[in-house]
Amino acid sequence: MIFLPYLGIILSLKFTLHNTDGAARAGALQTDRGEVPTPIFMPVGTQGAVKAIEPRELREVGARILLGNTYHLCLRPGTDLIERAGGLHRFIGWDHPILTDSGGYQVFSLSDLRGIDPDGVNFKSHLDGSVHRFTPESVVDIQRSLGSDVMMVLDECAPYPCDEEYASRSNDLTVRWADRCRSRMEQTAPLYGASQSLFAIVQGSVYPGIRQASARALVAMDFEGYAIGGLSVGEPVEAMYAITELCTGILPEAKPRYLMGVGTPQNILESIARGVDMFDCVMPTRNGRNATFFTRKGKINIRNARFATDLAPIDEACECYACRTFSRAYLRHLFKSQEILGLQLATIHNLSFYLWLTAEARKAICEKRFAPWQKSILSELVPEVGEDE
Amino acid sequence: MIFLPYLGIILSLKFTLHNTDGAARAGALQTDRGEVPTPIFMPVGTQGAVKAIEPRELREVGARILLGNTYHLCLRPGTDLIERAGGLHRFIGWDHPILTDSGGYQVFSLSDLRGIDPDGVNFKSHLDGSVHRFTPESVVDIQRSLGSDVMMVLDECAPYPCDEEYASRSNDLTVRWADRCRSRMEQTAPLYGASQSLFAIVQGSVYPGIRQASARALVAMDFEGYAIGGLSVGEPVEAMYAITELCTGILPEAKPRYLMGVGTPQNILESIARGVDMFDCVMPTRNGRNATFFTRKGKINIRNARFATDLAPIDEACECYACRTFSRAYLRHLFKSQEILGLQLATIHNLSFYLWLTAEARKAICEKRFAPWQKSILSELVPEVGEDE
Repeated sequence: MIFLPYLGIILSLKFTLHNTDGAARAGALQTDRGEVPTPIFMPVGTQGAVKAIEPRELREVGARILLGNTYHLCLRPGTDLIERAGGLHRFIGWDHPILTDSGGYQVFSLSDLRGIDPDGVNFKSHLDGSVHRFTPESVVDIQRSLGSDVMMVLDECAPYPCDEEYASRSNDLTVRWADRCRSRMEQTAPLYGASQSLFAIVQGSVYPGIRQASARALVAMDFEGYAIGGLSVGEPVEAMYAITELCTGILPEAKPRYLMGVGTPQNILESIARGVDMFDCVMPTRNGRNATFFTRKGKINIRNARFATDLAPIDEACECYACRTFSRAYLRHLFKSQEILGLQLATIHNLSFYLWLTAEARKAICEKRFAPWQKSILSELVPEVGEDE
Repeated sequence: MIFLPYLGIILSLKFTLHNTDGAARAGALQTDRGEVPTPIFMPVGTQGAVKAIEPRELREVGARILLGNTYHLCLRPGTDLIERAGGLHRFIGWDHPILTDSGGYQVFSLSDLRGIDPDGVNFKSHLDGSVHRFTPESVVDIQRSLGSDVMMVLDECAPYPCDEEYASRSNDLTVRWADRCRSRMEQTAPLYGASQSLFAIVQGSVYPGIRQASARALVAMDFEGYAIGGLSVGEPVEAMYAITELCTGILPEAKPRYLMGVGTPQNILESIARGVDMFDCVMPTRNGRNATFFTRKGKINIRNARFATDLAPIDEACECYACRTFSRAYLRHLFKSQEILGLQLATIHNLSFYLWLTAEARKAICEKRFAPWQKSILSELVPEVGEDE
């Protein structure tokens, strides 16, 4: 009975397509916690924090939506505490949209997997070895507790390489689980007064036939958005682009498309060109903490001796706090001296760069000049000169 | 010849005493880069960065002057680069006053000491074993290169315990070196258009006779300010207070007094009560990175299990970003999860607390209620309830 009042809003996520340019799309996701312009890059807040950056700084660098990891948050600090805190947004001090993954990816990659069965999956926590079970229903329940604006279905992310038979069986399971997630969602209600939507995940490894079947089956179930999973897991980049293009060709125009875990600036632009709207990746934050800065002229590793006396900013054209305030020589000094401030400034800069990139892509799409803009940007970015790692 | 135009400004630091309450003093240091109200706590930026906090955040938490370490900066990144960058302020992105120590303390505590002679001291870098020499003249030159607003004389900080004869000889050396630093300063000029002042350092271990002689000799040389060094090095806290009181009783009213490397909130209040104006200590930043938060009700270690579900802020009365935005439970989660954001927020909070403490002390002095205010604050702070370390 308590669920009935919410039946009307479970499909309340609105996605508006403002412009297209070829297959590239400029749109906006409307959530109860604000609008997200697309294409958009989502910084990754695995454990309820984006590493080395404050929530107020995430706004400053242009973040509009964060990604949270269901697997990590459910193990620590646990959903009980997050519910008591009034949901994930209040707990982590971020009032804007959050997308949570289902935990499937981490169960299959991080935990000690104890067995998968048609009903769900048993695993041991990578933290303390405790045994847990995820089912399609339980991951929806967890995401209800978290209160994310966009929830993801439980999927099996097949490893790469995997044979066609495995990929097919795995995808069948993912499709059945998606349906069960959707049912669970319809039977439950958001806890914090803001509606939550549910995205399905297209799987099928690098097999076009399985990907097609996957996408069609999920589209027939009419989800509020669609992710393309199981890419950027080791396959050749051309396979990634081909599968992405195949999927976006099937997915409905009116729904947002999210390419999970991708990627480099080049990967993101090529995927926008193929009709993807949303991205997440640890690359800008992780590489930043490893002294690698993304710039409009390619990546640089600030530890390189050639920056020792370079008093120019990381990227002349960048307007972030790090570039407005500090020199390459100073940032190199911070990394050489193992100062935490170096990690902070690298994170601010790299996220600014990624969010600048998707914002500029959006402008170019709206102005029907995406292809030439992309070509011009890529000619500067690739080959990624100055990469020293 | 180039030095002559500056002779008129080498004593240009102005210290204004606004109010006293007993021995406690409320004043202000005027530098070319801004005014510093006293009593004041100076965050420590050892290697050209205060650990885990951005310069703009230092302003936000109330910092008015930073401490930089000559020894560290001279070894890495070196004065050549800092001169090329236009001085330390520009290099580190901090436009406000900086005080630099002389490096003496680190030479005697950090480096592999190779020998002290009447002219100076040879040491091996703790970073790479390279051999260096500090003389009274060279440390003034280095501080000219750094461009700090307040420079310190080269001193020998005697270890504790040390016998009276050692303390006496060591202090004689420090006094002679102070005179040479002063001469060098008068022969040289600031490099970046802002005047620099020089503080002497009273030494003499815990021996009242030597401390008196030290203070009197240095006062006779008429420095622009006076530090009390060689305390907080292991001596009983009552000895520290007694020596501090002895020194401030001799030092001129019209000059600022700086108690080096002190200390706990209680130490700071007790020393303000004895006439000290300036403090520096790594305690708020270092303890913060170790999960210890200072609050108006004493210290807490946020890792303690009793904070696991505590949704209150660290300190209800604190107005810092961390306390306005996050709960104890969240901060505990960050530390348990080894998130860098925990270090950032602890640093913001603890520095806010220290700077609140000295600002409140100033107000209390101006309103002639320092003693009752101090008593009331200390009754909450000490014994430091909730300390779990």
